[in-house]
Amino acid sequence: MTTQKQTGSESRYDKGLRALAEVDGEAGRKVVESLADIAPDFARYLIEFPFGDIYSRPGLGLREREIATIAALTALGHSSPQLKVHIQAGLNVGLTREEITETIMQMAVYSGFPTALNGLFAAKEVFEGNRAAEGEAA
Amino acid sequence: MTTQKQTGSESRYDKGLRALAEVDGEAGRKVVESLADIAPDFARYLIEFPFGDIYSRPGLGLREREIATIAALTALGHSSPQLKVHIQAGLNVGLTREEITETIMQMAVYSGFPTALNGLFAAKEVFEGNRAAEGEAA
Amino acid sequence: MTTQKQTGSESRYDKGLRALAEVDGEAGRKVVESLADIAPDFARYLIEFPFGDIYSRPGLGLREREIATIAALTALGHSSPQLKVHIQAGLNVGLTREEITETIMQMAVYSGFPTALNGLFAAKEVFEGNRAAEGEAA
Amino acid sequence: MTTQKQTGSESRYDKGLRALAEVDGEAGRKVVESLADIAPDFARYLIEFPFGDIYSRPGLGLREREIATIAALTALGHSSPQLKVHIQAGLNVGLTREEITETIMQMAVYSGFPTALNGLFAAKEVFEGNRAAEGEAA
Amino acid sequence: MTTQKQTGSESRYDKGLRALAEVDGEAGRKVVESLADIAPDFARYLIEFPFGDIYSRPGLGLREREIATIAALTALGHSSPQLKVHIQAGLNVGLTREEITETIMQMAVYSGFPTALNGLFAAKEVFEGNRAAEGEAA
Amino acid sequence: MTTQKQTGSESRYDKGLRALAEVDGEAGRKVVESLADIAPDFARYLIEFPFGDIYSRPGLGLREREIATIAALTALGHSSPQLKVHIQAGLNVGLTREEITETIMQMAVYSGFPTALNGLFAAKEVFEGNRAAEGEAA
Repeated sequence: MTTQKQTGSESRYDKGLRALAEVDGEAGRKVVESLADIAPDFARYLIEFPFGDIYSRPGLGLREREIATIAALTALGHSSPQLKVHIQAGLNVGLTREEITETIMQMAVYSGFPTALNGLFAAKEVFEGNRAAEGEAA
Repeated sequence: MTTQKQTGSESRYDKGLRALAEVDGEAGRKVVESLADIAPDFARYLIEFPFGDIYSRPGLGLREREIATIAALTALGHSSPQLKVHIQAGLNVGLTREEITETIMQMAVYSGFPTALNGLFAAKEVFEGNRAAEGEAA
Repeated sequence: MTTQKQTGSESRYDKGLRALAEVDGEAGRKVVESLADIAPDFARYLIEFPFGDIYSRPGLGLREREIATIAALTALGHSSPQLKVHIQAGLNVGLTREEITETIMQMAVYSGFPTALNGLFAAKEVFEGNRAAEGEAA
Repeated sequence: MTTQKQTGSESRYDKGLRALAEVDGEAGRKVVESLADIAPDFARYLIEFPFGDIYSRPGLGLREREIATIAALTALGHSSPQLKVHIQAGLNVGLTREEITETIMQMAVYSGFPTALNGLFAAKEVFEGNRAAEGEAA
Repeated sequence: MTTQKQTGSESRYDKGLRALAEVDGEAGRKVVESLADIAPDFARYLIEFPFGDIYSRPGLGLREREIATIAALTALGHSSPQLKVHIQAGLNVGLTREEITETIMQMAVYSGFPTALNGLFAAKEVFEGNRAAEGEAA
Repeated sequence: MTTQKQTGSESRYDKGLRALAEVDGEAGRKVVESLADIAPDFARYLIEFPFGDIYSRPGLGLREREIATIAALTALGHSSPQLKVHIQAGLNVGLTREEITETIMQMAVYSGFPTALNGLFAAKEVFEGNRAAEGEAA
């Protein structure tokens, strides 16, 4: 649980922080914070491996990466909080609402109608939350 | 696989056949044929719903649709034959090998390393099969 | 596997609406309505494919179809709202409470005790909701 | 739901053996034998709990129990050997081939087309194995 | 792997009750009670098979058994109430909080980061519930 | 896909290589090699995150870590090659055959009998392969 100086891994951490901020925004920061008292090292891994290593790779755009993640989380069907974070992340990196709902609908073919339905309801919640927030801001 | 006259559903069937040919090519035709004696109606549904209804929708490109499908099938981990068909389908609709392996590698984050590993080995098999076929053609 | 005359895709929708009403009753209608603003086409697919195509097929009775669905949703373990809809649907098409709990209990063998337990608690909720409603009606 | 008198665990074993023979026939016996050197106690549990306790219960017929099992194993998608055993078991307890393929096809709705396809191919293998055996016997 | 003398199914029940009390404590008793009106026989099976047969076996310690269960329930990702019961059970049989969070964190490798995250949040809830209770008791 | 010098991450790599050798032995090396032409960076991640980060952590012993992994892979049911690697890994870090089969059998409770059966058959294959190799060596 030490926070020893690591010149190389620090750069993974920094790259990860930047990718996390770009992709997940506020939600990512909250997840990391909520791990502080139970598993602080896991917060670091979460920044370093998924974001520092994977999302920072050049071979696939962030829009495509979020399509892949939304598809997988819809299909697996067991991680509703993370699916919502990534629906928002999809919007953050430039996916349209339609592209997100199309991705989710397509999962009816690969993991069944219930997973697609629950994915669409998750999207509805995220979209409506945003609409409410836009209303407040107006 | 009777071809009874259906004015409305025929267009779904025809649209589906066209999308299936574009996406899955030869492999799609073989799956449909292999269903002929056990569940011919299911072959029809497979053409009509996934391909006639979903893949034919305008809101998401075929490249993005294949990224979503490869991601989901890698993550679910239980449908290796269909994953291989869609890795080939990804190539058919213009994904590069790198985009496909990036999509699969990313699943290590969402469904674990074993599913990503098995996805990469499936990709290796598809890519090598193609390379062998290219060799034969040369 | 019969080849009955179907005038068009509208008849799939109408057949689906009838099957949906018979099987899911009020709950089905609510799901369809809740999709209206997020993915109206998906509401149509839900009526056409599962209900218009599958549940309308003559080769298996609705009681058996609901046993299959309750078993699968209990075993998958990730779609509690849909499981509850189909426990009610089972009652709607004539399954007894005992047949439903037997189906769910059997899943302890195939997907483990936690899925069976969660299935039984879902059934309890549906049965008690009905009992409360019967009480109100009395 | 009564707690009828049971003379001992031996009677669960005997009830289980009888149910196993009725449901799984030869295939059940082979599974039990193949466990003899690795986990003999597990062979006993397999006879006692699923077959002695569950399949022997009066509240649901064996035909319905096999529909539930075929549905669940198709939907879970990860246990192809057991699915084949239960497709044969379905035939053993009086399901028609059509009832079995209808059950499997329906899973396209609940766990996706790939699981339904793999289930249909498993059924094809079982049905063709039987046809070959019938040919030999003729 | 011995086949020690068992006087009857009652002794499985009694052995199971003892193991259930040792492992799950209060939570186990509540689950059994909550099944009383919906599926009383299932409450008996739950005591007899998992606890009377499996947890009572000598070949693996209760600490190791709880590590296995916490790992599996975290990885499956669909049974949050049972995961919480077994995180408490892990504490009951002598696992430290650190051993439990290490087990859960490791699942990021085998079933993905979302399942590990949800497992850690479940652990946080259980640990904080205990801390609150300890505070009340002080 | 570059292999740029990273002073900190090299130490994760080295720690990971050591843990991989200790845990997976020959099998781990083969998996890494088989990734060389399809996804060399993924081979590096596999060494760095699961083995360099997770298995190298002090809070849980390697025996306990392998119990957790065997449990999870048995329960997930979709990664038979990795399960076999970790059954061998369990033996490598000092688990007895009995401890491994007990862990797998216990999964009947949490993910169903088919996953436990397939896990036991995987263990049988690994144990028999070893016995054959011991015979050759004699």
